[in-house]
Formats: sequence, C-alpha cells, structure tokens
Amino acid sequence: MYEGVVQDLIDELGALPGIGPKSAQRIAFHILAADPADVRRLAKALLEVKEKVQFCRICFNVAQAELCRICADPRRDTTVICVVEESKDVVAVERTREFRGRYHVLGGAINPIGGVGPDDLHIRELIARLADGTVTELILATDPNTEGEVTASYLARQIGPMGLTVSRLASGLPMGGDLEWADEVTLGRAFEGRRVVAG
Amino acid sequence: MYEGVVQDLIDELGALPGIGPKSAQRIAFHILAADPADVRRLAKALLEVKEKVQFCRICFNVAQAELCRICADPRRDTTVICVVEESKDVVAVERTREFRGRYHVLGGAINPIGGVGPDDLHIRELIARLADGTVTELILATDPNTEGEVTASYLARQIGPMGLTVSRLASGLPMGGDLEWADEVTLGRAFEGRRVVAG
Repeated sequence: MYEGVVQDLIDELGALPGIGPKSAQRIAFHILAADPADVRRLAKALLEVKEKVQFCRICFNVAQAELCRICADPRRDTTVICVVEESKDVVAVERTREFRGRYHVLGGAINPIGGVGPDDLHIRELIARLADGTVTELILATDPNTEGEVTASYLARQIGPMGLTVSRLASGLPMGGDLEWADEVTLGRAFEGRRVVAG
Repeated sequence: MYEGVVQDLIDELGALPGIGPKSAQRIAFHILAADPADVRRLAKALLEVKEKVQFCRICFNVAQAELCRICADPRRDTTVICVVEESKDVVAVERTREFRGRYHVLGGAINPIGGVGPDDLHIRELIARLADGTVTELILATDPNTEGEVTASYLARQIGPMGLTVSRLASGLPMGGDLEWADEVTLGRAFEGRRVVAG
C-alpha cells in the first residue's frame, strides 16, 4: 500500500476497463513525475466529457449539441441509415469514407445472457425514423459476432415488412491477411459470400 | 475522429504509458457512460496526487509530508538501508514483511544508453546517509536486469571501502515456478547461488 493519495489514484485508475493493478501503478507513477499542466489537462478532459457530451436526439451518436455532427450536416444522404452498436463503430465506418448516409446507434446488441433485450436498445426510435418514408435503405452494421448477428436478424425480421432495402455488411476474409490464418467460421462465410468475377 | 471533447479525452488518455489508441477509446467510452461522481473522483485523485505528493527528504520515497511513512516511523531499524530503484519497489519489499529497516530510493538505475549516469540518481545522498556510522548494513535491491546489476556493482565499489556490510538480493528460480520454464540466465544464477542443505 502506498501513502494515501497515491493509493487513491491507483484504485481509481484500476477501476477503468482494461487497466490492471500493475498498469494502474505504472500510470500513477507516470502522473507523479509528469508536468502538472499535463495532469490538469487530463483531469479537465475527464470532467468536460461528462459536462459537454450528450447523445444525438436523432441517432444516439455522441454529440456536443442536440444533434451530432453527422445528423447536423445537410450534405449527408438522408435516405440511407447505417445501424451500428456503438458510437465507436460510427467512427470506424466514417474512416472508410465509403458511406455518405446517416447512422443509428443502438447502444449495444441483443444479448439474452447479459440481460440485454430489444427494448434496452434504441430500436423503437429506429423504427420511428423509418415511418415517414424518407429512408429507403438500411445497412445493418452490427458486429460480426453472435450478439451482432442476433441483433441484425431481429432487425431484419422487424423492418423487412416495411418495404425498404435492408442489407447486412459482408463477412469474409480480412484484407491483407493470409488464407491459412483465417478461422473456419470466417473462411466458411467467405465461401458462402463468394462473388463471380469472370465467366 | 470524434466530436471535440471526446477526442480530447482519447488523446490525453493515449498519452499515458501502456495505453494505446484502442484502450484510450475504450476508456473514454467507459467514462462517457460512467457515473459522474466516479469521474469526478478520478479527476480529483489525479489533481491531489500532484498537489500533495512530495519526495521524502531522507530516502526519496513518495511521501505526503516532509518524511515518508517509513522514515517517520520510530519502530523501523535505522541500522539497515535497503536500496531500491523506485518507490514501487519499496511497496514490493514491504509486502514481503521481511524487512524492518529503512529504504533509499535511487530514482532509477544507471543506463548509459538511456543517458542516466550515477549523478542522475540519489547516490550522493545515499553516501551522505552513511557518513555518521549509524547504518551498518546496506542491501542492494536494484532490479535483476542489466541496469540494476550495473547500478548494484557501482554502489558496491563506491561503498565497499566504507566498512559496512553490503549485500545483494539473491537471484534464482522464482518460487512456484517450474524448472523447465526458467530462462538459462536465471537457472545459471540458481546454480551459482546454490546452498548446502545437508551433509
């Protein structure tokens, strides 16, 4: 055990996700040796994120105003919605520069074991967004794991009858990888989703 | 890129040791979802550690007053000093409950490649502590790696002629391990340091 305030900091840091006791100690000693101005900036960033960040009224992405940057941007295509689990997935899709529509952030995925059902996600709000007929295409970009697949299937069943195009992101081999390193599920999906390229 | 304050927090977190961009993002989203009181406690712990922590005037351990808890404790044996690299090593030795003397925290180890020489460590202050003859034994507990060994050798050469007992922590097989998993340097040290147990 350290002197009071050092131990307090180690305890607080250790409560963050992915930070074990050793990392917490290492970070605490880094803080002890760091420039006070840097530490004040970190403390300020922590507090500001709680004060200033809210969730977009339309899509539930993180936002610094009532609407997120994407929903507030009139250049974005309002006829396509990409449905993702979390705000960090919005960032991942934005990085591809492939998508010019809007998003809908569910706030997680259906996970019966974890006690997350459809009513715990922003699914009702998604269906409400589809009501006026502006949206013609929905891209289901939930994670390619059990919970994400279950969530995509649930949404496909709920929204399918509404008459818009509903698609799911392709599963297959990651680019830059090597066939022999692919797990069998991924490789199976790559076969299933194979595309004719000639003939 | 995220909305301003979220990205600011990710950048600040990512500047901490051992936290990559993915972990910084994960922690930032944890903070976004966390109880504001928890986040205020973390921010406060960061600021308090900078405000309240100083280094012990005698041994350079972290302290909340002029002296650390150990140097301020009259029950500790003042005739033995355990020399360590960092305050976290003090905590590690204290956990063993084997040592009732005092410490001296060097503030690192000699590392010519990293530009750390003897004058960058609290070696001069250590030698000054030995001047009045109270201390009769010095235990060199620097890390069992190249820098730690170099530092221990340097100290042994400097302090050897002063007539007190200077010892180095034993190297050998870690307890609870398995012989076949030991690296050859550790196993070599274990042979070198073998002790007669019978006959």
